[in-house]
Amino acid sequence: MFMLHCTLHFETGQILCSLLAVDSSGGFVAYADSTAEGKRLVAGKDQKETQKKKVVVLGTGWAATSFLKDLDISTYDVQVVSPRNYFAFTPLLPSVTCGTVEARSIVEPVRNIIKKRNGEIKFWEAECLKIDPKNKIVFCRSNIDENLAGNNEFSLEYDYLVIAIGAQVNTFNTSGVLEHCHFIKEVEDAQRIRRTVIDCFEKAVLPGLTDEERKTNLHFVIVGGGPTGVEFAAELHDFVHEDLVKIYPSVKDLVRITVIQSGDHILNTFDERISSFAEQKFQRDGIKVLTGHRVMSVSDRMINMRAKSTEEDVSIPHGMVVWATGVGTRAVIKDFMEQIDQGNRRILATDEWLRVKGCEDVYALGDCATVDQKKIMEDISEIFKAADKDNSGTLTIEEFEDVIEDIIIRYPQVELYLKSNHLFDVTDLLKDMYGNEEVDIEGFKLALSRVDKQTKSLPATAQVAAQQGAYLSRCFNERERCLKDPEGPRKFRSGGRHEFRPFRYRHLGQFAPLGGEQAAAELPGDWVSMGRSTQWLWYSVYASKQVSWRTRLLVIGDWSRRFVFGRDSSRI
Amino acid sequence: MFMLHCTLHFETGQILCSLLAVDSSGGFVAYADSTAEGKRLVAGKDQKETQKKKVVVLGTGWAATSFLKDLDISTYDVQVVSPRNYFAFTPLLPSVTCGTVEARSIVEPVRNIIKKRNGEIKFWEAECLKIDPKNKIVFCRSNIDENLAGNNEFSLEYDYLVIAIGAQVNTFNTSGVLEHCHFIKEVEDAQRIRRTVIDCFEKAVLPGLTDEERKTNLHFVIVGGGPTGVEFAAELHDFVHEDLVKIYPSVKDLVRITVIQSGDHILNTFDERISSFAEQKFQRDGIKVLTGHRVMSVSDRMINMRAKSTEEDVSIPHGMVVWATGVGTRAVIKDFMEQIDQGNRRILATDEWLRVKGCEDVYALGDCATVDQKKIMEDISEIFKAADKDNSGTLTIEEFEDVIEDIIIRYPQVELYLKSNHLFDVTDLLKDMYGNEEVDIEGFKLALSRVDKQTKSLPATAQVAAQQGAYLSRCFNERERCLKDPEGPRKFRSGGRHEFRPFRYRHLGQFAPLGGEQAAAELPGDWVSMGRSTQWLWYSVYASKQVSWRTRLLVIGDWSRRFVFGRDSSRI
Repeated sequence: MFMLHCTLHFETGQILCSLLAVDSSGGFVAYADSTAEGKRLVAGKDQKETQKKKVVVLGTGWAATSFLKDLDISTYDVQVVSPRNYFAFTPLLPSVTCGTVEARSIVEPVRNIIKKRNGEIKFWEAECLKIDPKNKIVFCRSNIDENLAGNNEFSLEYDYLVIAIGAQVNTFNTSGVLEHCHFIKEVEDAQRIRRTVIDCFEKAVLPGLTDEERKTNLHFVIVGGGPTGVEFAAELHDFVHEDLVKIYPSVKDLVRITVIQSGDHILNTFDERISSFAEQKFQRDGIKVLTGHRVMSVSDRMINMRAKSTEEDVSIPHGMVVWATGVGTRAVIKDFMEQIDQGNRRILATDEWLRVKGCEDVYALGDCATVDQKKIMEDISEIFKAADKDNSGTLTIEEFEDVIEDIIIRYPQVELYLKSNHLFDVTDLLKDMYGNEEVDIEGFKLALSRVDKQTKSLPATAQVAAQQGAYLSRCFNERERCLKDPEGPRKFRSGGRHEFRPFRYRHLGQFAPLGGEQAAAELPGDWVSMGRSTQWLWYSVYASKQVSWRTRLLVIGDWSRRFVFGRDSSRI
Repeated sequence: MFMLHCTLHFETGQILCSLLAVDSSGGFVAYADSTAEGKRLVAGKDQKETQKKKVVVLGTGWAATSFLKDLDISTYDVQVVSPRNYFAFTPLLPSVTCGTVEARSIVEPVRNIIKKRNGEIKFWEAECLKIDPKNKIVFCRSNIDENLAGNNEFSLEYDYLVIAIGAQVNTFNTSGVLEHCHFIKEVEDAQRIRRTVIDCFEKAVLPGLTDEERKTNLHFVIVGGGPTGVEFAAELHDFVHEDLVKIYPSVKDLVRITVIQSGDHILNTFDERISSFAEQKFQRDGIKVLTGHRVMSVSDRMINMRAKSTEEDVSIPHGMVVWATGVGTRAVIKDFMEQIDQGNRRILATDEWLRVKGCEDVYALGDCATVDQKKIMEDISEIFKAADKDNSGTLTIEEFEDVIEDIIIRYPQVELYLKSNHLFDVTDLLKDMYGNEEVDIEGFKLALSRVDKQTKSLPATAQVAAQQGAYLSRCFNERERCLKDPEGPRKFRSGGRHEFRPFRYRHLGQFAPLGGEQAAAELPGDWVSMGRSTQWLWYSVYASKQVSWRTRLLVIGDWSRRFVFGRDSSRI
């Protein structure tokens, strides 16, 4: 491998700048740094441009796209690397699995998104294979087959790195999942599911099958009762009962849909009312919900589970299994975590400013990372010291009020704690505990001791990723100004102020389409909405959130077409 | 393989009715006839149904669909077998290659087409592997992967077999074509071309490539200057210059498109004016046309040709080659031809009633067969004898006029001959030769001797296939009536009349879209039309010819979307 590279490069007269041997978890052995060629590429640019800070963005999903959209590129030289040259509106992926919406209607070429900036953002269709934070280089490889001319590997130097490559499927090491299950992660996954559903029907109607075989082929199993799994089950039910039974009438009574959920309820991250509304709707529709079952293994024909309560093993034959649960860390991120002493963590950790912990100038956002919220108890003495201006050893309400705003900004769990305890004024925190209005350090610790339990990790949703992208682009845009005039909360430990406010997630609600023109929604302010009107709310929200007018019209067109003509069952 | 089948069948308690060993050109060894199961399937049907004649149709293309559309199924029990569960509007395939029209807009599920008949036409998604004309059985195998339950192989008995499985690509045994070329035959081919075009651009803009490598990757070669190749070249040119240069501005001057044609002109089956209009348009557009070159071999990076005039060998590097020339016979047809003594022919031959020669009750239509037009000279003595009513040994004009209608119906080349010689009256045929009005057998032979040269084989087009399908369904529908009251021409050899008129192709014209909203067309009556208005004629004809209102609206929607937003360049 190494020899091959040398030969290639000497032949083309290029200089091998550096060679890097990697312990091959990603399957590659040696890299030729082609910076020399990279420089030649930008040789024509003016001096000013090369003085700009180099930002490399990995990914073209929600986080990356939202970051790029508002980034002011007059001060940055931006390069984007992703194996997908398009942004996909992933919340509509379950609709793509059944052809309610076409795959092409939910994608937008990333070049269209960055082209608005006169092509000054460069995009390379390639996968990042290795991040080298010491030398501030990322190594990439194009995923285009080798028929085309030119080297597939290249490397990019960065001043700032923004990692937004998302997560991969998590099989929880369940055997057979990778081989025999479908996923709803990428556009290609959804297209494959659509073809497989049709395959199951085409196979089931063939002459010479027993009824048992037909039934097996028409048993669709969904593992995971979260929003994705539930929405897919609902879509599939509609597809089968609105469209497929008309053209495969002979097998219409043999179709079964089963949702397997390890917890006690489906949609268990939603409000209880929504969860039981969904369960009732599914029961009416004949979608079987198997709660309290853990999948032990999947084979080509069977799915094997264990009932949590009875420890009994159950096996059922299936025609298709869709694995709609869990997110896992990608290999390149794991390797990166090893390098920055995060090797013992499950997910890449950032601080509240989305900066990767243990490494300079690298940011991570979206599903590939988690914000490691600082615990207030770690800083409790420093906070007390800073608040106790008169060094009296006790804190008055007035002294507390002076720092409370900075505390709430720095430690958002405080606000969550207040809300969950129905406290309307922060000072109640102290008052409530003691009745009196002055506390010493021990009292202060006691008052805040249960606050950190409210620390929640953010869900792996498009909403979080998009907000993080927008937040980070603002930080990048305001970097100069905020360096001089910090706008963040007080640094209790080291003094001074943080440059920026930390990232704060605003939950705007969540939808769960349940099929048959019914949906459930959690709206801001703990509102819950269910039924047909919610489905229409869903239509309008999802249409309005589209990234371009083109995709908006296409999606609306797809919905209208579905209403008039139904879904297409051609196997393409 | 044989053992495996036995085991399987004994296990499920089924009886092996027949076993057939095949000399494995199709890659299979033994078949278990599962008629027992097939019968069990239709056990619930009423007696009348089982008395109907069984028609098996192979294929869901133009010929098969057109046959099924008008077939009266009250007297036939129809089963359709095809690996594609949809009909594709193939004339729009070149548009799909560049995303001007979406793949899904040109397909219609075959079950939608046959469902109009209350599901009485059965469809099986499977490939026909073997035709056994002696026992009137076809053997089929489902192409769905083996994960699903039940046997993939089954067989069907027929009373009438309609073969309409189309042709496969013909590489003319050119080495490397199958491995390194793209084709425009199936919907999947077009989708693959679209992805590859994007790949070529994505690869070409990667950092670290030389300009020469970029140029190689952006060299698109089309082999074949027929309507398909020319239309694809034009589509690609539009795609590149209307859409791709905007998002890949750095490489816009490196793109080259080359059309290789072995003949002296592109579009050489069209009128000369169209051919030269196309060549001029391509020259203005910068599409290189390389006439008089034959492709000798294709490798992953190079295409090797020989100039016909100078016998010189030329090799040019390419990023992608599209092979748009030639149709070949499928393996299952070749095997069938061996069985019916057509083994030495290139294409399956039928008579003028689309009945396969050398075999009973089998019909073949569309690209998979050719009509072997009976030569008039073979029957010339019988014709003379039949026409010479008074047995005088000479034929008068009056006697000739009595049979001329039957002659023209039976031997359509007569009409073509008249037209090409600008003769307006058939009797001129005799007069013109001699001036006198009576001929003997030798004179008669001489008069018609050059007629057979006008025999033309029909082109492999959708138009021919669709007309053949419609013709054959009428024959099937009128079978009972025409048996009693034949409507065909006189049988000169054996006496009596043919049941039906032979198939007669009516050429309705031909389009050649040339890109940039320009098209050329050959219209009926030798009209030629070229330019922008012809493109609009093309739009309206192609929209009106769509098989359903759904695809019609989708195609029109795609065209409109392209006008407003351009073509999508996402790599999905």
